[in-house]
Amino acid sequence: MQSLRLAGKPVNNENRRAAILDAAVVLFGERGYYGTSLQTIAAAVGMTKAGVLHHVGSKEGLLEIVLDEVYDNHNDEMRERYLAKERPLMAQMWRDVVAMNAERPEQVHMFSTLDAESIDPDHPAHQYFLERDRDTIDLMLDVPWDVPEGVNVEQLLNAGFSMMDGIQLRWLRNPESDLNELWAQCEDQLMPLPMWDGYR
Amino acid sequence: MQSLRLAGKPVNNENRRAAILDAAVVLFGERGYYGTSLQTIAAAVGMTKAGVLHHVGSKEGLLEIVLDEVYDNHNDEMRERYLAKERPLMAQMWRDVVAMNAERPEQVHMFSTLDAESIDPDHPAHQYFLERDRDTIDLMLDVPWDVPEGVNVEQLLNAGFSMMDGIQLRWLRNPESDLNELWAQCEDQLMPLPMWDGYR
Repeated sequence: MQSLRLAGKPVNNENRRAAILDAAVVLFGERGYYGTSLQTIAAAVGMTKAGVLHHVGSKEGLLEIVLDEVYDNHNDEMRERYLAKERPLMAQMWRDVVAMNAERPEQVHMFSTLDAESIDPDHPAHQYFLERDRDTIDLMLDVPWDVPEGVNVEQLLNAGFSMMDGIQLRWLRNPESDLNELWAQCEDQLMPLPMWDGYR
Repeated sequence: MQSLRLAGKPVNNENRRAAILDAAVVLFGERGYYGTSLQTIAAAVGMTKAGVLHHVGSKEGLLEIVLDEVYDNHNDEMRERYLAKERPLMAQMWRDVVAMNAERPEQVHMFSTLDAESIDPDHPAHQYFLERDRDTIDLMLDVPWDVPEGVNVEQLLNAGFSMMDGIQLRWLRNPESDLNELWAQCEDQLMPLPMWDGYR
């Protein structure tokens, strides 16, 4: 990975903590939680392991921070934005999520790696991902989506977020691909015309 | 993981090799390729590291075997089966794939973990997964699928296999869930009625 040292920035607590989180995102993505030591993270930011622990408490604490604080910090805002809309359309919400993720490949890489690694019930993020699968749907079910008659909103959300997981893996693996374009093709399958005419 | 020693079986080369592959599937799934040493695999089957190397050549060789020989050994047969059908329906093909995967959770776990871990361009399975994304679609495009007018078969295949990746993660994480049931809900979204009436 590229160096994440604090080149050119004032060395203070805030910058140090931010550099640790940046390094953890990249390293957890490339090597997983199991494959990344606090020592490697410390070396990447030019600190000691004790210095890293001072900022994040523990390796498990660091994992919680990069998931909760870094990766998932947009979820509530997204829900609020769609709750406020007069006519919330699911296709628009997914395009918003995809556009956001297209701008943060390293975070999506981390998410994808931890998502699979945490299938293991002993993984410290197992419960987090288990609850997240459910919470993401519940959060979005609060929004009165305008969908064609007969559509099962809960099942559509589950199917759509599953599709997004898979297409993001294909995007990350192929640096020439464009996530927004890939998703546009997915949208055509998930919300096909003419059935979804006027609803996307 | 549970012991994978050769309890009760005659100790010969074939059984030894099979035990190594079984252990590698479980350990690559739980800890990833990076997180699993040949020493751990050797210990799991009650052999020495040198003994394991005698059977599989190298750690990279073992990775290739569990992907090519163990995980992907059904692909050609599936394609042949659908090429031979008078009226091949994509919904049936996906149900067949899902029914097969529902019976092999440890292999799907391994696949999911390596799928994400190999986003890293330095990962030894990076090229394998990159080509597999493309090859799976190409293989299936040979089949003259009977689909409703206007459906883009290539995009549908890409969207459907992406959805399957995501729903399999949810299934593996939640031992109470049933992959066939989860997929039935996905199918209703991916091939909605009445558009797909008579085509699934």
